[in-house]
Formats: sequence, structure tokens, C-alpha cells
Amino acid sequence: MAEPIAVELAKKQKEIGVAEFFSRNRHLLGFDNKKKALMTTIKEAVDNSLDACEEAQILPEVSIEVIDMGNDRFRVIVEDNGPGIIKKQIPHIFARLLYGSKFFKLSQSRGQQGIGISASVLYAQLTTGKPAKIVSRISPKYPANYSELKIDIQNNRPDILNEKEVEWNKEHGTKIELELEGSYTAGPQSIDQYLKQTAIVNPHVTIIYTNPKAEQIIFPRATDILPKKVQEIKPHPYGVELGVLLDMLKFSEARTLRSFLQTEFSRVGGNTADEICKNAAVLPDAKPKEVSREMGEKLIHGIANTKIISPPTDCIAPIGQELLEKGLKKEVNAEFYTANTRPPSVYRGNPFIVEAGIAYGGQQSAEEPIRLLRFANRVPLLYQQGACAVTKASVQTQWRSYGLSQSQSSLPIGPVTLVVHICSVWVPFTSESKEAIAHYPEIIKEVKLALQECGRQLGIYIRKKKNVQYESKKRGYIETYIPYVSEALQELLKIKDSEKKNVETLLAEILEKTRGTIEAVEMENLEYDEEFAKIGKGDQDEETN
Amino acid sequence: MAEPIAVELAKKQKEIGVAEFFSRNRHLLGFDNKKKALMTTIKEAVDNSLDACEEAQILPEVSIEVIDMGNDRFRVIVEDNGPGIIKKQIPHIFARLLYGSKFFKLSQSRGQQGIGISASVLYAQLTTGKPAKIVSRISPKYPANYSELKIDIQNNRPDILNEKEVEWNKEHGTKIELELEGSYTAGPQSIDQYLKQTAIVNPHVTIIYTNPKAEQIIFPRATDILPKKVQEIKPHPYGVELGVLLDMLKFSEARTLRSFLQTEFSRVGGNTADEICKNAAVLPDAKPKEVSREMGEKLIHGIANTKIISPPTDCIAPIGQELLEKGLKKEVNAEFYTANTRPPSVYRGNPFIVEAGIAYGGQQSAEEPIRLLRFANRVPLLYQQGACAVTKASVQTQWRSYGLSQSQSSLPIGPVTLVVHICSVWVPFTSESKEAIAHYPEIIKEVKLALQECGRQLGIYIRKKKNVQYESKKRGYIETYIPYVSEALQELLKIKDSEKKNVETLLAEILEKTRGTIEAVEMENLEYDEEFAKIGKGDQDEETN
Repeated sequence: MAEPIAVELAKKQKEIGVAEFFSRNRHLLGFDNKKKALMTTIKEAVDNSLDACEEAQILPEVSIEVIDMGNDRFRVIVEDNGPGIIKKQIPHIFARLLYGSKFFKLSQSRGQQGIGISASVLYAQLTTGKPAKIVSRISPKYPANYSELKIDIQNNRPDILNEKEVEWNKEHGTKIELELEGSYTAGPQSIDQYLKQTAIVNPHVTIIYTNPKAEQIIFPRATDILPKKVQEIKPHPYGVELGVLLDMLKFSEARTLRSFLQTEFSRVGGNTADEICKNAAVLPDAKPKEVSREMGEKLIHGIANTKIISPPTDCIAPIGQELLEKGLKKEVNAEFYTANTRPPSVYRGNPFIVEAGIAYGGQQSAEEPIRLLRFANRVPLLYQQGACAVTKASVQTQWRSYGLSQSQSSLPIGPVTLVVHICSVWVPFTSESKEAIAHYPEIIKEVKLALQECGRQLGIYIRKKKNVQYESKKRGYIETYIPYVSEALQELLKIKDSEKKNVETLLAEILEKTRGTIEAVEMENLEYDEEFAKIGKGDQDEETN
Repeated sequence: MAEPIAVELAKKQKEIGVAEFFSRNRHLLGFDNKKKALMTTIKEAVDNSLDACEEAQILPEVSIEVIDMGNDRFRVIVEDNGPGIIKKQIPHIFARLLYGSKFFKLSQSRGQQGIGISASVLYAQLTTGKPAKIVSRISPKYPANYSELKIDIQNNRPDILNEKEVEWNKEHGTKIELELEGSYTAGPQSIDQYLKQTAIVNPHVTIIYTNPKAEQIIFPRATDILPKKVQEIKPHPYGVELGVLLDMLKFSEARTLRSFLQTEFSRVGGNTADEICKNAAVLPDAKPKEVSREMGEKLIHGIANTKIISPPTDCIAPIGQELLEKGLKKEVNAEFYTANTRPPSVYRGNPFIVEAGIAYGGQQSAEEPIRLLRFANRVPLLYQQGACAVTKASVQTQWRSYGLSQSQSSLPIGPVTLVVHICSVWVPFTSESKEAIAHYPEIIKEVKLALQECGRQLGIYIRKKKNVQYESKKRGYIETYIPYVSEALQELLKIKDSEKKNVETLLAEILEKTRGTIEAVEMENLEYDEEFAKIGKGDQDEETN
């Protein structure tokens, strides 16, 4: 009998290697085009350097060199003073996708997926056929190791072409050299812009950058204080899902459910564990390995019905209101600055903090949409603004009540630089290339609250500024009439010229008192929106009269 | 001596499992929230059913049932009449990420990554702890196999909970049943909308849909003709990169470079192979395994400098101008329709075809942005419109010259439904959830050309419509004056009332001749833009007079 077609079709089914998958889907990792590929490579290397330095509590000093090799090829060299990498791990970290420590750790870091730098190595290999060259040293007492690495794409394993000890003038640190197809340009999504923005939100970092024109740009550190060292936390019960819980129960070494809950989750002590079990109607001394799907489901309900305090927040390190405002002052020449760090919040059990800052006025264009700078875990997000939760929250904020003009579902118009920073133990990016933050309602809400707080400060400033302008305009009108009034009084009362002068001075003083202080105070007390409307109307009336 | 910190850090480094990675990054696969999760699950199941049917040349009949289980849980059952899956493959296809046949095949299909349906199984398992239930049968001569499957997340391998032969009233086909957290709503990104749009671009498919309200909706097939069966092709030399070429050379079984080029690539015969080698200055009888990086680089240059005909296009099956227009007519109640299928083009060696269609007028709102429907390989794209190359091309098209109003970097305003379909052997999506197409310049260019062609047809129609309105308005004015002119003539020439009537008829005839035909023809001959401006001005003048 003829074989069913399914038998034929089955012959073509096979496993797809991770490196194969990402080499074809390279745009998922930020290698859409030559310009972005060069940018992403530098970003991944620098992010790794900063993470490593901070983890080892070393003040980071990173040098970046980009050399134009002609024919759209660039050599990129990134060197740090970090803790270095032990010899055995070097091939896996640089030449294997989905390998690393940050994925499993619940604490804030720039990298989180174990893909970034190895994707750059993969891209370099695909476009120029050349291996990555790594030098790393972990202490002056150890030699520096040099490796040439490629990725075995079919198996997603490192292919070591060369390995030897070398002389290196650094006590500890790591250097990576890649040759790849790229394209170098200036502008809003350039390497220069990425490094500049990195310097704003990382004031403890010194960056030495040599661009393809062989110009050296140094971003010196502004503080010797490292960001607070973040602590690793356990997952919070509120974020756990049934499927994950069942797996945790299966692999747990705890002997009772009670101790399982205490050891595997943050914020669960003996009492909370008992309460969860009680609310779930399961026995606290049940064996974790014997918990069925149905019991697991009860446990999830039990967790939901138990009041458990929020996860600890020493796992995240925001920039802080003060430093954020300082960073803005350093970067943007404006007339008014404000910043705001929200209290910690939680999405799917992951703690996160939103910070926002505004720089208003100065040389910034008043006719164009505001400039929005987005950051996640201290990394600038330069692409996919339209797809980002931060943009959504910014667009949905009612900026008109804060004195900016705004059409529906657009960013407001005005001379404003808006900075939004989200830090979390796990930033939910919309793609592996980490360009935009996914639309979690909890995140959007927090961004909005941060923007509203900044917006209110901005509104007060703009209102005051408008009041001053309005007042000076009104006073201008009245001042214009003072000489005529005094002239009329002179004629009526037959006073001398000197007395007329006195009257003028007196009238000016009265004006000062009434319009300069009392009315202004009254205006301050009025509700903002009402006031704003009145001022707007006043301006119009005067213009048409 | 104290251990360097790098030793401590190294202990935390480890491999990240593919299923672990995607279970945490589920939003990458389209499981951002409950609503989208339900939608994505159905989409993945239906896409797979349609692909399987077409591959086996079976007219697809797919039934979808969504049952509300309460507490935000839904049971989804998708059943097809496809070729079925052999017993051994069932666990791998449904309970293992990155497994399948479509990734390696260069021919148009809906799925292409080997992730979709297993991601749905993973999500169901994570949210409800329940396994996927599969029934599949490959022929009436074989039994139907039933399996209950979960994914072993750490190892990304199937976990078979139950396997048995069952009675099934179908000769061949596959049925999947999942229980997952979800949320069901109507609207532009709903299951209903997805199925409706699927029916438009797949007129050969019958869909029977039972929604959570237990209402049955049937989308019957409109044609018994299956889409042209697509052929698998080899990669085209123009798309090959150095790194990939070096890997291909390493694993090739060809004995000479010449035969390597002929067997591994499409459109390379003996002469072309010789020419490539000549242009690369390498010997055609070199052994592939001995080709060095430098020689590989020369080969790439040789390929670039050799004229090679475009890849064959029997690997892709567009809908076609006629069926696309029919589909639009079925879906949108409008007054004017046009569609356009572009000739095949190539990005990174992958052939692709862009099609576009427009439905204008009718009940559609003239005050709102046009409705843009995007499709890739016959699958509707419902999310991430802002991030899609199709949107970029639509926004950058100068719709004003085609008679629609448009502000800068926005979709035009007008009573228009715009359909764009891209089919390719490999659609470059911006994320695994396949919602938006990456910004490849070649793709954007082709979309623009398709839109321009449709736009020109639309412009001609709108212009004619405006001409007719303008003419009838002008004629109206003149007609109004004919009685006065004839009265004046009667007085001047002292003619009878009957003669006055004749004069009126005569004047009306002259009007008919001059304005009704000659001038209209003249206007047709004028350049479009000029004409359009004149008409606009004319309208204004009349309004202000």
C-alpha cells in the first residue's frame, strides 16, 4: 500500500539549533542592518563590562575603539578594568548563545538573557568569517589568557581556534576584539549618542571612546561612588504561576510544604507559610513532591488570598532623584529641571522602580515634539520608541494640564527633554534586542504616575512663568496710561509739575502693590486649570483689542 | 591567597534552556497578556492546520471551538482534516520548542520557526498545569493516536503522560485540545477578526468557529482551487554571507568548487559557476573543504561581480490581483476597488512578492485614518502595526497626489481599506510572535511601488469623481442663466415664445457640447496634480463668491 503523505512529511522534521535560529533571525538581536549591528556590538560589550565591574564593586573604566577597515568593515575593541573571566568560562561566555549567570539571578543587571555578546561574535563570524579575540586576566597573580573563538553554529558550542597565555599590562580586566560588517554615522541612534546617554545615567563610569575618525572623546566619571550593590532575591509568591510552582515542587529538596514555601520564596516566614496553607486548605506538612496539580491550584488560590508584604527592593538600584536631575543638568541646557523616583512596585512578582526627569526651556525647540530618552537598568534604549510602554504612558498622559500642547495619541509639543528610567530584576523587553519595554499595565501605570509628578512641577513652573509674563504685560498697559492719568489730574486739580511727578510715582507704587503682589497671590490660590484657561483667554482678548 | 572574585562569579555561569528562556520571555512569542495568549494559541493551531493541508494538497476544513471554563480559563479545540502526524513525531512537534520542518525549507509557509504551537502548549502548562491532548491519524488504514503531552522545561524535551490508540471518526487529520488562561473580547484584535481576515486571503478554506458564547460562525470556502503548490528552492548566491558560505563549504560533499556552487545554490549552472570562479580568481576544481577564509572572501566578491538571474519564484504563491480584489469586495462595502501584484523581488537572496489592494468610499468614514490590513504568507498581522515595514511604507507614500489628505509621517485620512500582503520563503518578522515585518529597504521599496500603483488607480477615480462633481456644479450655474439669456434675446430680437423655447434648447445643447465633452477631454489631458490644484481652487472660488 502507498505510504500516507504524513510519513513523507515526517522525514523533514528535525531539531533547530539555537545558534541557527538566531543567525537567521539576527534582527531579533539588534542586527537588522549594518549601522545597528555596529551599535549593538558596542552596546553589548559595554553593558557586559559595566555589569561585571559593578558586580565586583570596581569603579568602571571602559575604553572603546572603532576602526574603519574600509569596505563597510569595522574592527571594534572594547577593554575594561573588570574582574576578568576564568579561562575555562571564556569560550562559553563569548561563543555560546543562551549561557550566563544573569538569567537565573533575580537582581538588577544590564544583561539578562545570556545572548548579547555571543550574538555579536556570531554576527562578526557570519559577516567577515573572523573569530573573536579575547584577552582576560583575573588577578595580577594569574597570567592573562588569550583566545580566538568562533561559534559552531549547528551545535551552539564554542570552537576554540587558538588559546595561549600572553603579556598584558592590566592587573585584571577583559578585552574583546571583533571584526564585522558595519556602518558608522552620527545622529540620534549613533554610538556617540549611546555613550553620551550611558554617561548621564552612570555617573560613576569613565568612558574613553576613539571613533572611526581617530578622534578621542572622554566621558570622565562625575562621582567615585558606585551604585548600591544589588542583592539577589528569591521570587515573590504573588508572581508565581501554577506551572512554575508545580515544577518547583517537583525539584524541591524541602521535606514539607511549609518549609518549601519558606525556603523558595521571599517574604514567606513560618506564619505566612501556615496562613497560605490554611487559605489553600492543604496540609503544611504535605510532601512537596507529592503535591498534585489540583493541590497546586489550591495553593495558588491560597497565596492570592494571603496578605504578603511586597518583595524586598535591595535587588534594584535606581539612580535617584538628585543624581537624575544632576545628569539632566549636565546634558541638557535648560531653564527648569525636575525629577522624581517612584516607590517600588511589582509586576508578576518582580519588583521595579520608575524614575522620570524633565528639563524645560532653554535652547530646546518649542515647536517640536518633546525629546523622550528611555532607559532600562541604566541602559539607553535608542530604537523602537513607538513600541515601548514608556512611550505609551507618555502619550496617554494629559500634558495639556501641565501647560504643554498635545494632540490626541501623540507626544506633547514643547521645549522639553523627558527622561524615563525603569529598573527591575527582570525588564520585560519586547524582543531580545532589548529596545522597547512590553506593555505591562503595572509598568505603564507607574510611568504615568512618575510623569504626572514631574508634570505637576512643570505645570507650576510654566504657570508662574505665564503669570509673570501676563502680569508684566498688564502692568505695561497700565504704565503706559499713568502719564495720561497724571496729566488729567494736573488739569483737574491744577497741581504743579513736581506734584504731577509725585502722583506718577504714587500711581506706579499702587500698581506695584495691587498687581505685583496681591493679585498674583490670589491667582496662585486659584485652581490651576481654571487659571490657565483665564490667562489664555486674557491673552486672546488683548491681542484682538 | 584569596581567590580572585572572577572565580566566585564563574560558579554562577550556566547554560540557559531554550524552554526556560521562552517561558520567561513569553511576550516574545505573543503571550503578553490573557487576551493575546488566547488569540495566539488559536492562530498557531490554525496556521499549522492550513500549512499541513496545503502541503498535502488537501482542501482545508478547520473547526475551532473555544469554551469558557470560568475564572479566566478557556479550553481551545482545533481540529483539521490535514494529513495527520506519525506517532513518533507527535511529542516533538507539540512539546518541544525549535523543532519542525519549515525552518530549513526555502518555500512559502505560514509557520517558519518551529516554535508556535509548542509555545502554546508551554503557556497552557504554565498557566493551568494541564497537558496538551492530541489526536492524530494519518490514514484510514492506520489507527488514530491519542497523546497527553507536557514540556520538560529544563531540557526542552517532550514529557509523555499518556499515549494510546483511540476510535476517531476522521480518516485523517489532527486535533489539539489545550486549557489555558485567557480572556475573550471582540474588536479589531479579536479571534473573530483574525478568522475573518484569514478567510479573506484564504478563499479555499472552510472555517467552522464556535465562540465562547456557543455561537457557531461558518466561513465557507469560496473556491475549490488550492493555492499553487509551492516548490522548495535552494538559496540564491546573492544572499549568501561569508560566514554561511564557509560553513557550507566545510560540510559540503561536493568534490570541486564548481560542483559545490552548482549543487548548493539555485540559478547556478556550469557556466555561471565557472564565471563566479573566474571573477573570484579561484580555481573551479579547488576542494571545497580546503577553501580558506581569504578564498571564501574572494568567492563572495566573485558572486557579487557575476550576473546571476533572480531566484525562481515557484517557491511563493501570491493571492493574485483578481482574488485579492474579490476578497476585498466580499469584506468591504465600497464604491471602488483596485489591486496590484508586484513582480517578484529579492532581499538577502530570498524571493518575495508584495500585493496591495484598495477599497474606497461606501460606508467607510472619510474623517478617520485609513484602515490598514497587513498580511504575511496569508496570515493576518493584528498587532504591532506601528513597528511594521508595511506601515512605514504606507506612511511614506505621498497619498496627497492620489487625492487623500495626509499629514507628515501619518497614515492618510479617507474612506479607504488598504490591504498589503507579503509572501516570501522567509518573512523577516521583528519578533518570534510574528506581528510586524522588519524594515528591510528592499521590502519597503516594493510595498511603496505596490501602493503607488494602487494609489494611481485611486487617484484617477477620485479625480474623475471630482471632475464630474465640478462639471455638474458649473453646468448648474450656466443652466440657471439660460432662461434669463433667452428672455433677453426674446426682448432684443422680438421672437415668439415658441422660438424662445427653441433658443433655450439650443443653448442647452451648446452647453452639453462644450462643457460636457470637449472641456472634459481637455481636462483629462492635463497633468494630474495641476488639474487637482485647479479644481481645488475652483471649488474655493465658488464658495467664497
